[in-house]
Amino acid sequence: MPPLPDILTQLNDDMRSGGDWGDVASYIPELAHIDPAQFAIAVTMADGETFTAGDADTPFSVQSITKVFTLAIALGRSGDQLWRRVGREPSGRAFNSIVQLEQEEGRPRNPFINAGAIVTTDEILTGRAPRETLAEILQFIRAAAGDDDIHINHAVAASEKSHGHRNFALAHFLASCGNLNNAPEKTLGTYFHHCAIEMSARQLAMSGRFLIDTPKLPRLILPQRIRRLNALMLTCGHYDGSGDFAYRVGLPAKSGVGGGILAIVPGIASVAVWSPGLNRYGNSRKGTEAMAQLARTMNWSVF
Amino acid sequence: MPPLPDILTQLNDDMRSGGDWGDVASYIPELAHIDPAQFAIAVTMADGETFTAGDADTPFSVQSITKVFTLAIALGRSGDQLWRRVGREPSGRAFNSIVQLEQEEGRPRNPFINAGAIVTTDEILTGRAPRETLAEILQFIRAAAGDDDIHINHAVAASEKSHGHRNFALAHFLASCGNLNNAPEKTLGTYFHHCAIEMSARQLAMSGRFLIDTPKLPRLILPQRIRRLNALMLTCGHYDGSGDFAYRVGLPAKSGVGGGILAIVPGIASVAVWSPGLNRYGNSRKGTEAMAQLARTMNWSVF
Amino acid sequence: MPPLPDILTQLNDDMRSGGDWGDVASYIPELAHIDPAQFAIAVTMADGETFTAGDADTPFSVQSITKVFTLAIALGRSGDQLWRRVGREPSGRAFNSIVQLEQEEGRPRNPFINAGAIVTTDEILTGRAPRETLAEILQFIRAAAGDDDIHINHAVAASEKSHGHRNFALAHFLASCGNLNNAPEKTLGTYFHHCAIEMSARQLAMSGRFLIDTPKLPRLILPQRIRRLNALMLTCGHYDGSGDFAYRVGLPAKSGVGGGILAIVPGIASVAVWSPGLNRYGNSRKGTEAMAQLARTMNWSVF
Amino acid sequence: MPPLPDILTQLNDDMRSGGDWGDVASYIPELAHIDPAQFAIAVTMADGETFTAGDADTPFSVQSITKVFTLAIALGRSGDQLWRRVGREPSGRAFNSIVQLEQEEGRPRNPFINAGAIVTTDEILTGRAPRETLAEILQFIRAAAGDDDIHINHAVAASEKSHGHRNFALAHFLASCGNLNNAPEKTLGTYFHHCAIEMSARQLAMSGRFLIDTPKLPRLILPQRIRRLNALMLTCGHYDGSGDFAYRVGLPAKSGVGGGILAIVPGIASVAVWSPGLNRYGNSRKGTEAMAQLARTMNWSVF
Repeated sequence: MPPLPDILTQLNDDMRSGGDWGDVASYIPELAHIDPAQFAIAVTMADGETFTAGDADTPFSVQSITKVFTLAIALGRSGDQLWRRVGREPSGRAFNSIVQLEQEEGRPRNPFINAGAIVTTDEILTGRAPRETLAEILQFIRAAAGDDDIHINHAVAASEKSHGHRNFALAHFLASCGNLNNAPEKTLGTYFHHCAIEMSARQLAMSGRFLIDTPKLPRLILPQRIRRLNALMLTCGHYDGSGDFAYRVGLPAKSGVGGGILAIVPGIASVAVWSPGLNRYGNSRKGTEAMAQLARTMNWSVF
Repeated sequence: MPPLPDILTQLNDDMRSGGDWGDVASYIPELAHIDPAQFAIAVTMADGETFTAGDADTPFSVQSITKVFTLAIALGRSGDQLWRRVGREPSGRAFNSIVQLEQEEGRPRNPFINAGAIVTTDEILTGRAPRETLAEILQFIRAAAGDDDIHINHAVAASEKSHGHRNFALAHFLASCGNLNNAPEKTLGTYFHHCAIEMSARQLAMSGRFLIDTPKLPRLILPQRIRRLNALMLTCGHYDGSGDFAYRVGLPAKSGVGGGILAIVPGIASVAVWSPGLNRYGNSRKGTEAMAQLARTMNWSVF
Repeated sequence: MPPLPDILTQLNDDMRSGGDWGDVASYIPELAHIDPAQFAIAVTMADGETFTAGDADTPFSVQSITKVFTLAIALGRSGDQLWRRVGREPSGRAFNSIVQLEQEEGRPRNPFINAGAIVTTDEILTGRAPRETLAEILQFIRAAAGDDDIHINHAVAASEKSHGHRNFALAHFLASCGNLNNAPEKTLGTYFHHCAIEMSARQLAMSGRFLIDTPKLPRLILPQRIRRLNALMLTCGHYDGSGDFAYRVGLPAKSGVGGGILAIVPGIASVAVWSPGLNRYGNSRKGTEAMAQLARTMNWSVF
Repeated sequence: MPPLPDILTQLNDDMRSGGDWGDVASYIPELAHIDPAQFAIAVTMADGETFTAGDADTPFSVQSITKVFTLAIALGRSGDQLWRRVGREPSGRAFNSIVQLEQEEGRPRNPFINAGAIVTTDEILTGRAPRETLAEILQFIRAAAGDDDIHINHAVAASEKSHGHRNFALAHFLASCGNLNNAPEKTLGTYFHHCAIEMSARQLAMSGRFLIDTPKLPRLILPQRIRRLNALMLTCGHYDGSGDFAYRVGLPAKSGVGGGILAIVPGIASVAVWSPGLNRYGNSRKGTEAMAQLARTMNWSVF
């Protein structure tokens, strides 16, 4: 096997050498004008060493990938009580679907679909101000990444808020079922802001180290919880494309509509890929391809 | 057959003499404290003569019954173009269901479920102010009833707005599908206000005369449109209890969660019943019973 | 208004003069080769006089229209107990949908969708042989039509059986929910055979007289039951196109996938139209048009 | 950590010492009379050494666990062409649900729900006789287990056939969508028979070795395919309880309604547990508990 830097360079070349980049998400106007023809990959090993290729220092909107961090925070605060409000089963439906919410009386299937992440945000927000909550989320991510230069893009947050009717529908539906502690506007305001956090692929790979579960790293959460977060990422991290990602890549991972994917190789590495063009499930098209190729080349799989 | 006044008196006695009144709607706090043990019936004949029994001059919140009037106004303004935005099929689901809205990409099944009535309201509101729109709705109803003493209960409207998360979910979902011309708050503000119109059973029966289609009455809408409104009332007027109402009563009718029902005997009469306790479909329990008994006694049925 | 025969002649000319005939049903091979460019209309007045135009003596497969007769027989035998097994609400879904059957634990929404008609057939079949049951159904229809020359097309029944996987799925699902008294093969055998009854438009119009409810005719069923059958036909007789048919035509009616429609003008007439090409709901395309035009011209509507 | 035999003994004691055993499946009469208060566990290490506790030599009906073997055979024969007929996403619904089959036009979500396994069976059956197909399945399982004393219980197969209306509904629905190559009766006959294969926990653990992916074992299938089967087992192996099992246990596994569970510790071991009482998802209640306890004690998890 060639050295990892060479593998990443090759991967970057392969991704850029052809094929469909996919389309960027159009429903958040601030993200709609991004050039889809970008690619970055970063791998942080258990010892902290990081290798990159492509646009690895270009910040992008991590969007739903923050759901991993907010879930970690919510579990840290509320423990298993959180599961009264949200399930941990794959939904089998699109990330923004409202159908199950009606059928299952306001309890979202898992914390990684929008409805579930709104509940998780609401749980963290309970008893404190949005500003304070956002500060805690940022602080957690910065500590995980070992990097204070991670920020919220307020223009993206505002853009999402003014075009977020689907999320407002979800939040009001949750409220109508008694599964929202705060006003929908307040919870969504916080939700839109943490989704608008920006990181580069390098920062994102670094921030994922807390999920590697290796004695070489300082621990942010309990080992058992690390495994459980990884389990949820594997079964639910790619919405209704989760089964396919597990089949093709075989690693726990969470995607974001900004084109980022954070994947974990337990005990070994944290991997971030980024390419803004999406496939039909709303997951990065080239990013998924790159993860599949990297996993195959490195023989990385949990199975 | 005994004379109609005697029949109504007997009906009033029968309804009050026993049986379960049902429960009042609890999700609008301002309506939740109403005594369910009330009953009124009023029948306005084609020649305008009105007979009543029970609490026929007690005003109540007509709620969804206004959807008949707003539909008449919307069709008067937009004609068949309205059907681009809303269907005319029974939904087979609860009045506030959001499932079909996702499955059918934001086009509500019919104008009498909440989602459809929000679209109808939005259609009338387009290009004008809420105040102006509400004035037109009130004017139409007052003209139909020949009675200017019909008003909006602003406390009920405010109560509905502050507890109307389910309707906010519907409106935002419609907006996310591009099927709302106005901001959800604006359309819903108008919607909550016209639902909060109050009438007595006597006034409601009078206001229904425009759907009788008889040469004896001044016409508010075209005869063909009268038939079509009646058809929609028969197939969709009682939500997912419409089939049962048609089977048992056999008359076009529209119910409201305030416990009122407006039924039309084509060519003959307009009937209003009111009793605030509801059955499981959200339709008046005693009101439905009374309508069935009256239709049977009078041999009134469209079939 | 011109005399009815002239109106029917004109209608026949209009239907043949242009426009899309629609496509014949393809899932029953024996019906797939029928020429869609055929049209017939027959009107039987309350006094028994019948007027026709077009191919009014050509027999066609009445298919789901027999569900009206089997429902009448089932109600005659079991009365309201039948409603324990089947509902009377519009389904809001396609005629052969199985989704609601799972959601509602094996109780079909109404007797006019396939699942409901299978239950109705099963109810009649209980305690007797298929042959005997089919004889009773034929006898009822012949008595209604006053015509003994009405028969089952066994080739069509066999064709339907050998390609009826969807109906087998429905029947087995009903059985798995405990809502089938007989073996699926037995109930379906009977169902396929009564669906394969053939009548001409003239015979079908004659057979519908029992639903007119006029003292001029001998009664096959109770007057109250006549009204209820008409109510069900209006709300459920055209599957998920029932609301639209009620809106456009305003008469209780039942369609069949063979291209026939039986409509009732209460107290006045029974109307049969036939044209084998279907619209997207599986109802006759030209037949629906013709019914709408006839109802408009004759000012026939229950509303 | 105590030696594995001691851990298994302790586990067996713990499971028998109290708590609810759950109820055995009632819909297959032949299985309904089994005593739920039984428990067995067997662990086969990568080197073939096997440790057991409890009723580890009592044969039981493996039921849906055979879906792992039939999927391996189907992939071996048809390769990725199989995925044209069946997906690989969690269904988010019960094992025998038919709703998605209608919504997704006859393509089952994954090969481990009933509809998907019927398709997989049908794929293997294509071009050969049921007897021959069953022989191949048995041969594969016997080779995997290194044990020829593995057989079909024909009484169980017959019982399932005579009460398998739900599976008949699924098969006929698949046929109506053109996704069945053989007659429903033929495919289901084969399906019911391979589900009726009996193994003891010891045999089942041995038979799972082919999924461990270790150079110490002879290979039945390609390494990449091993990983993919494990991925499918993790995301879909416990129906709508898959997410919860992944969260609590963290191992790829497949359950059967007979109370067995086969779990894989990649590179390390194959584990079989058996206890006939089920939880509400149709998975073994004590078996799931035992797997969770064993995984925790042994620190076995893919995450």
